[in-house]
Amino acid sequence: MTDSTFDYATIDEANAAVVDIVTAGQPTLVDVVQAHTVIPDLVPGEYVLLHAGPPVAFADMPAPMQASCVGAAIFEGWADDEDAARAIVADQARYVPCHSVGAVGPMGGITSAHMAMVVVVNQTYGNTAYSTMNEGIGKVLRFGANDAEVIERLRWMRDVLGPSLAAALKQTDGGYALSPVIARAISMGDEMHQRNIAASALFAKDMAPLLCRIDLPAEQIAEVSDFLSRTDQFFLNIAMAACKSIMDAARTITEGSVVTAMTRNGHEFGIRVSGLGDRWFTAPVNTPEGLFFTGYDQSQACPDMGDSAITETFGLGGMSMIAAPGVTRFLGAGGFSDALAISEEMAEIVTSFNAGLSIPTWDFQGAPTGIDVRKVVQTGITPIINTGIASLTPGVGQIGAGTVRAPLGCFTQALEALAERYGIAVD
Amino acid sequence: MTDSTFDYATIDEANAAVVDIVTAGQPTLVDVVQAHTVIPDLVPGEYVLLHAGPPVAFADMPAPMQASCVGAAIFEGWADDEDAARAIVADQARYVPCHSVGAVGPMGGITSAHMAMVVVVNQTYGNTAYSTMNEGIGKVLRFGANDAEVIERLRWMRDVLGPSLAAALKQTDGGYALSPVIARAISMGDEMHQRNIAASALFAKDMAPLLCRIDLPAEQIAEVSDFLSRTDQFFLNIAMAACKSIMDAARTITEGSVVTAMTRNGHEFGIRVSGLGDRWFTAPVNTPEGLFFTGYDQSQACPDMGDSAITETFGLGGMSMIAAPGVTRFLGAGGFSDALAISEEMAEIVTSFNAGLSIPTWDFQGAPTGIDVRKVVQTGITPIINTGIASLTPGVGQIGAGTVRAPLGCFTQALEALAERYGIAVD
Repeated sequence: MTDSTFDYATIDEANAAVVDIVTAGQPTLVDVVQAHTVIPDLVPGEYVLLHAGPPVAFADMPAPMQASCVGAAIFEGWADDEDAARAIVADQARYVPCHSVGAVGPMGGITSAHMAMVVVVNQTYGNTAYSTMNEGIGKVLRFGANDAEVIERLRWMRDVLGPSLAAALKQTDGGYALSPVIARAISMGDEMHQRNIAASALFAKDMAPLLCRIDLPAEQIAEVSDFLSRTDQFFLNIAMAACKSIMDAARTITEGSVVTAMTRNGHEFGIRVSGLGDRWFTAPVNTPEGLFFTGYDQSQACPDMGDSAITETFGLGGMSMIAAPGVTRFLGAGGFSDALAISEEMAEIVTSFNAGLSIPTWDFQGAPTGIDVRKVVQTGITPIINTGIASLTPGVGQIGAGTVRAPLGCFTQALEALAERYGIAVD
Repeated sequence: MTDSTFDYATIDEANAAVVDIVTAGQPTLVDVVQAHTVIPDLVPGEYVLLHAGPPVAFADMPAPMQASCVGAAIFEGWADDEDAARAIVADQARYVPCHSVGAVGPMGGITSAHMAMVVVVNQTYGNTAYSTMNEGIGKVLRFGANDAEVIERLRWMRDVLGPSLAAALKQTDGGYALSPVIARAISMGDEMHQRNIAASALFAKDMAPLLCRIDLPAEQIAEVSDFLSRTDQFFLNIAMAACKSIMDAARTITEGSVVTAMTRNGHEFGIRVSGLGDRWFTAPVNTPEGLFFTGYDQSQACPDMGDSAITETFGLGGMSMIAAPGVTRFLGAGGFSDALAISEEMAEIVTSFNAGLSIPTWDFQGAPTGIDVRKVVQTGITPIINTGIASLTPGVGQIGAGTVRAPLGCFTQALEALAERYGIAVD
């Protein structure tokens, strides 16, 4: 069925319009709230969970992601023990992709009504995006851990960390502008997916004086300050919400071949494309390869999961590998020249370069922006994603970090759909 | 006069021993105190000032440095107005190089008895080094400003900032280890002289929870946290003291041709060399060239001054330009390839590379370490120094930033002295 009503004369013109919105985005962190206050689907008391990736049934989730659901059920008080919780999440819960409700979630992305979420407004366009906050490393829900320590931390994030940051943000003039932090961090060796050391430090030091001035017990403020200080990936979730707010704004252009979302649920990898609306184009996920913590190896790696590939969708993460030569070794992706080669390769499949994200180590070239489905299929070059690697065994958590390719199948399907919509060969 | 008693068979062996000490240094920030409590020369009430660079008379100091002396006199209460203060510092004060008393000072380096100083202990060797703290940007004493705002800030640093940081540091286990911060910052685009954004952010976020836990009014803690948060060069002075503690430890090797200090007083550039004891080898300073803030130009640039070249002596700053491609544009030193060319050039005049300061943008090569007087004279390549540029007009402050070369004369004189001591041709 051919749709012959177009606002743009060519796909290239539509893509340029998409990228204009992407590069003009000004995400601002304005609040931290409980999820149910901003996500209508998350009615307190109802068995509803958000998850990462395109739609997926509980039975198709990998074991760590299922374990995250169990943890969320315990956190919400739906059940007191793991067996009872599992019965609920396996048989009675309703699942909604984060992406369908303006949110993003790292790894499993499991989000329940009373979890704390950051609220990011794209000031240029007025739309909003949400994400849970980073729990730190070790045993954390997003990697499938769900014991008492994990649940207790989620409660602390809900009751202490969230309200403290919300009170700190209220002292700012309309919120904490994220674009300057991201631009600066890109010049400080972050690629904003596997390395957020700079952005997290900038955020922690910027929040510190605001936290000092809120009316809460000093020890509580110290706990918050301490958590921010030692959580090197804290900014990742904020960056994810920022990227989501930017890419969702770009989805108001309903033409062209630019990828507006990439995400994974441990079962399928899904993409959305500017000219193809809400449809997900999916293919089986790959499993990340990289470096493993002592005692773990590739055989234990969980298939690719998480909404964090929204950073690559925007042009960060693996797309901007050259910004973070320090992270390439951590990911098993080689040295400086390897990082350069990866970004040069990614440059072949994008529409433009984001001048607002100038990369000094790339001789100040901007981050590669606007992945073009046509170029991916033409070249066979699929986006590379930097990612944490979860253990297949629930409760173990992160066992390494590496890279993974988006499967080509998503892009070939999308190209076929574009051809159908445009009534032409689009490649 | 030939000294024939040597511990090392060759100059190369002596140099290797010097560099071993340099790379093994573990500087730790342990305290912030008033200068007179640790510098015996600074007797309260006596007219004594420390200054940057090799020894210099008041009359030979450039105008901004003289103005700093006036400011210090007012800060100390030696006089109430500028004329009276000038009479004292011009005619009655005694001047001592910072370097002679284990200290370093940025730009003018003017330090008086009651100024707050950081105390850095080189844990590997037990020696100590000191520096005043960074005052931020704008009107600041180190660039020759001396009005009421400047004096008031110095008092606040003495009465609030210093004691607060001292109390924060008391909560650490023996101090705040600086080597990990420097190593990390080098992977985050800092070269630790003109760019300390990463290190300052890391320091600010690390201090934040400690500051929350000290027994002082919340507003005072907030002021301190706020100052640390917005002072991007705060870490510079700490890095300077760290480098001084490292290079002073290396001076226990009294042989070889490694430069152990480089510094400038606005009149002369001076170097010390491992095999040549306390002697300064001096030559007229050059004037830095670079980029100027709007409304200023090269004709207003003050000749090179400051002990901050201790960072280059250690292998940071201009020596490690490739670590900070983001700073090369700010200094008017070009793009990524120019930064690379500078570090490659500096690599020709050093003894070794510091594996503890791995530079990701240099494919993880270590910072160039141990400037060899022989190589400087042989190649004619003089160390390049990244520096702020002061206005020649007192009170104006910083007008730009750029680079400056150490004058070759210092090195040729030192080489002649080495030839004399070793009784051989050493080149």
